[in-house]
Amino acid sequence: MITPDLTDLPFGLVVDERGQLKPATTTIERRLSQMAGMYADRDAEQTALAGGEDPLVYEVHQYDVAEYAGELMVCTTILHPGKVGDEFFMTKGHFHEVRDRAEIYFGLQGEGQLVLARDGAAEAVPMSPGVVAYVPPHWAHRTVNTGREPFVFLAVYPGDAGHDYGTIETEGFPQRVLERDGQVLVERSGR
Amino acid sequence: MITPDLTDLPFGLVVDERGQLKPATTTIERRLSQMAGMYADRDAEQTALAGGEDPLVYEVHQYDVAEYAGELMVCTTILHPGKVGDEFFMTKGHFHEVRDRAEIYFGLQGEGQLVLARDGAAEAVPMSPGVVAYVPPHWAHRTVNTGREPFVFLAVYPGDAGHDYGTIETEGFPQRVLERDGQVLVERSGR
Repeated sequence: MITPDLTDLPFGLVVDERGQLKPATTTIERRLSQMAGMYADRDAEQTALAGGEDPLVYEVHQYDVAEYAGELMVCTTILHPGKVGDEFFMTKGHFHEVRDRAEIYFGLQGEGQLVLARDGAAEAVPMSPGVVAYVPPHWAHRTVNTGREPFVFLAVYPGDAGHDYGTIETEGFPQRVLERDGQVLVERSGR
Repeated sequence: MITPDLTDLPFGLVVDERGQLKPATTTIERRLSQMAGMYADRDAEQTALAGGEDPLVYEVHQYDVAEYAGELMVCTTILHPGKVGDEFFMTKGHFHEVRDRAEIYFGLQGEGQLVLARDGAAEAVPMSPGVVAYVPPHWAHRTVNTGREPFVFLAVYPGDAGHDYGTIETEGFPQRVLERDGQVLVERSGR
């Protein structure tokens, strides 16, 4: 049982001009090789990884607090522009380990889609600067950069939420976000 | 016992150019007359209220979800510029009714101070656009507009946190934020 850190003091952080949260206590960099098999076009994935290239897909800059329900984690995500075949760069996507935990996103830079899934249902929320997007309890969520600039957003979620990446790694996600004839297409997919 | 709303669907909201969250389900307008006795200079308060004037001090635009620990409430606050005597316009300030609930603020426009208090301790976090400010569990918190433009920020807090305004109304807040010789002064006060 994790309890709140009663010695916590108030603090201020800054989101810098490229979207980095400073200071951060955890920084994650996800490269394409760490998302093996998540994009539909395996040939395009192999091509993108050929010759030792391994594109940086996204960065998460987080300030950690106690993993307690009443605490709140805050992070920024910088999702770089790019595609694998015709599929836009995206995050791995996750459920919260504690399923009934919500999350709030706030768009800071660039353009994207928040795609969500639950029990066969699928939803998408377009995001841009000034948009607040709500991930309700129980919904898997993934973000996608549909533009040509970095897509940057702030996220806040309960301290005890945790991340379950494994379910999406094995079961896939029911939407793909593609570029078709110069347009952004959110497509229902088999997995 | 309030449980999460399992019929919740994802949604997107927009913070408009003046800082209003749209759509909102609750909008609060606090005028000076609703904060009677909170500013130190009672004569200046009476003068500000004379002749039927009743300045709008701040607005809160909130999107309500279920009052459940795993849900997250989101709102924007537009704190207008102004002073009562030499004391800057501020919010009423509150503890969370459920004391061990944190809150995250994100500065959008203007300049301010987040002042906090707990068990005789007092802290202040300066806020401006791009600043993430953390209200730890158990700390009373109030925001103050120290600039000449509206001070606007986004706030996220757990669905079950609730607001206790009464404790500050009766016991006061241990800091006052004043203009002295053109400078912003955060002063420890008797109440």
